[in-house]
Amino acid sequence: MKATVLHAPHDVRLDDVEDPVILAPTDAIVRVVATCVCGSDLWNYRGINEFSEPRPIGHEMVGVVEEVGRHVAGMRPGDFVISPFTISDNSCPHCLMGMQTACENLTYFGGTDREGLPMGGAQAEYVRVPLADGTLVPLPETPDAHQIPSLLTLADVMGTGWHAAICAGVHEGDTVCVVGDGAVGLLGVLAARQMGAERIIAMSRHPARQALAVRFGATDIVEERGDEGAERIRELTSGVGADAVLECVGTGDSMEQAMSCARPGAMVGFVGVPHGVRLPVELMFRRNIGLAGGMAPVRQYLPALRDDVLDGVIEPGLVFDLELPLEEVAAGYAAMDERRAVKCLLHV
Amino acid sequence: MKATVLHAPHDVRLDDVEDPVILAPTDAIVRVVATCVCGSDLWNYRGINEFSEPRPIGHEMVGVVEEVGRHVAGMRPGDFVISPFTISDNSCPHCLMGMQTACENLTYFGGTDREGLPMGGAQAEYVRVPLADGTLVPLPETPDAHQIPSLLTLADVMGTGWHAAICAGVHEGDTVCVVGDGAVGLLGVLAARQMGAERIIAMSRHPARQALAVRFGATDIVEERGDEGAERIRELTSGVGADAVLECVGTGDSMEQAMSCARPGAMVGFVGVPHGVRLPVELMFRRNIGLAGGMAPVRQYLPALRDDVLDGVIEPGLVFDLELPLEEVAAGYAAMDERRAVKCLLHV
Repeated sequence: MKATVLHAPHDVRLDDVEDPVILAPTDAIVRVVATCVCGSDLWNYRGINEFSEPRPIGHEMVGVVEEVGRHVAGMRPGDFVISPFTISDNSCPHCLMGMQTACENLTYFGGTDREGLPMGGAQAEYVRVPLADGTLVPLPETPDAHQIPSLLTLADVMGTGWHAAICAGVHEGDTVCVVGDGAVGLLGVLAARQMGAERIIAMSRHPARQALAVRFGATDIVEERGDEGAERIRELTSGVGADAVLECVGTGDSMEQAMSCARPGAMVGFVGVPHGVRLPVELMFRRNIGLAGGMAPVRQYLPALRDDVLDGVIEPGLVFDLELPLEEVAAGYAAMDERRAVKCLLHV
Repeated sequence: MKATVLHAPHDVRLDDVEDPVILAPTDAIVRVVATCVCGSDLWNYRGINEFSEPRPIGHEMVGVVEEVGRHVAGMRPGDFVISPFTISDNSCPHCLMGMQTACENLTYFGGTDREGLPMGGAQAEYVRVPLADGTLVPLPETPDAHQIPSLLTLADVMGTGWHAAICAGVHEGDTVCVVGDGAVGLLGVLAARQMGAERIIAMSRHPARQALAVRFGATDIVEERGDEGAERIRELTSGVGADAVLECVGTGDSMEQAMSCARPGAMVGFVGVPHGVRLPVELMFRRNIGLAGGMAPVRQYLPALRDDVLDGVIEPGLVFDLELPLEEVAAGYAAMDERRAVKCLLHV
């Protein structure tokens, strides 16, 4: 089969590899219908996360179950499933508390499973999913083609934006500030709107992303950054600051921006993998600004968000502004790397 | 009148100073009935916070209103009042959201008021309180003598322990871990019990403080610290970690301890003024451990806690294990500095 392999920074290829097979009775083999490129894949693509040998890549996909191990009870071949970006058993104490990204049996696509056996990446024709019952979320029936992009966002970016809003404690009537206009930030806007935020300020200087933010529910756009950006947020909030802030980037600058936009007593929800972030503990103490978040337990949010997509309540798939066949995966990476695309969907 | 003045590290004296007078129409003069020494006073006493000249000290007191300025409407001479440790107007946007420690007119005892006029400390016979209506909380009648210690804790330590538990998100049925066995930590135990925690683990190696923790509601005591302490918490929580952690010290070690005891998805509520704390952002992200807290808006919690004290629901005054006349204030500092006393009350 064909699978995406990162050979070196900026060198991503669709290689011929062996088809995955059932290795454990709790495995499922999924035929991928759609996959996509994630902002966090770019950390590897850009060589910021080091790696020494070619590695399979991709961790977001929807598809059809091809085969299941004998212990898999929750799905059958032919079922359409959504996979969160992490493998979890959904039965350990952390999973039961909704923290599937802290699962005692947590593993990742492109890594090794809990038996030490290699797992492929999700940017491929087929993928083996360990702990299928705990990980995959089936749909009652095969969705319409137009629903596929939205369902695919539930594998990561929609659930991650949702987590940011949950961790920021967004409440009805709040003024929310969203730092980051990537897919996660844009879907953080959508999440905040769904949670009843009255005013949603998206920080973005990119016209197409601004338009998408507005479509998802942003009421204000702030183009300024740094001190000027914080000053604009203060102006927009009568000098008070935002009731909740979503930090959806993960850099030192973006975290500083988020902290500077929060009103005293507010929470910053952070979901960008931190790279070079140093937290200003004295400022947080003095202004009572809290921070919560981390690797999003999208598995927790998936069933409810799936229903919202199927019911047409939300359409997070609008975040895909580039669709390519899997064969052109390298072009998808390049477009996202150069910020020509917000997020690239790959048809398989 | 007599007032406590810190002349140099470890040199605290009761000096003769001028009586305070009304300087603004929103001022009140309060005759102090009881005051106390705070753990945060020790940062100054020990010379860790630098200062160049003698300074009045003390920020916790209850007393009787002696005189009010012509704009003070909420109290009259003769009223018994509790003062939070900060001056606030209780009418700006931050105060209205319950964040009185971020008040637009925030000032401190022993500093200067918003007009730049000097304010005395609270370890004195009398004290001028600016913005009296916003700051002081009157009682319906003069309390019994046995209620004075508990009411005095509402000036700071009880409200601060309460804030730690609020910020840690303590819920009914939770397992809560409290780091720090000073007055704030002990009252954090009491706060967690009031919020319905089922299991409260106090980290303490001091027998008298352990006993007090148990009296306030601790169900378990952990004497170990560092990795061993974290391991003990894991043992006590079936390997999961605590649902909520209260960090009531403010050092790098105590913060590290708090983070290591939290289960994935838990919040650490922190109220110890940070000294040398560096937050482990990668660990927080990986394990979804949040942090919230800061300088406690005790004014927010004061009316409800006052009622709980007057109704006999809580008795936080048990935290005072040393009572001295104001004349012996220096002995009170020494006892707390040497950890011979948890908290020293000074009768005026």
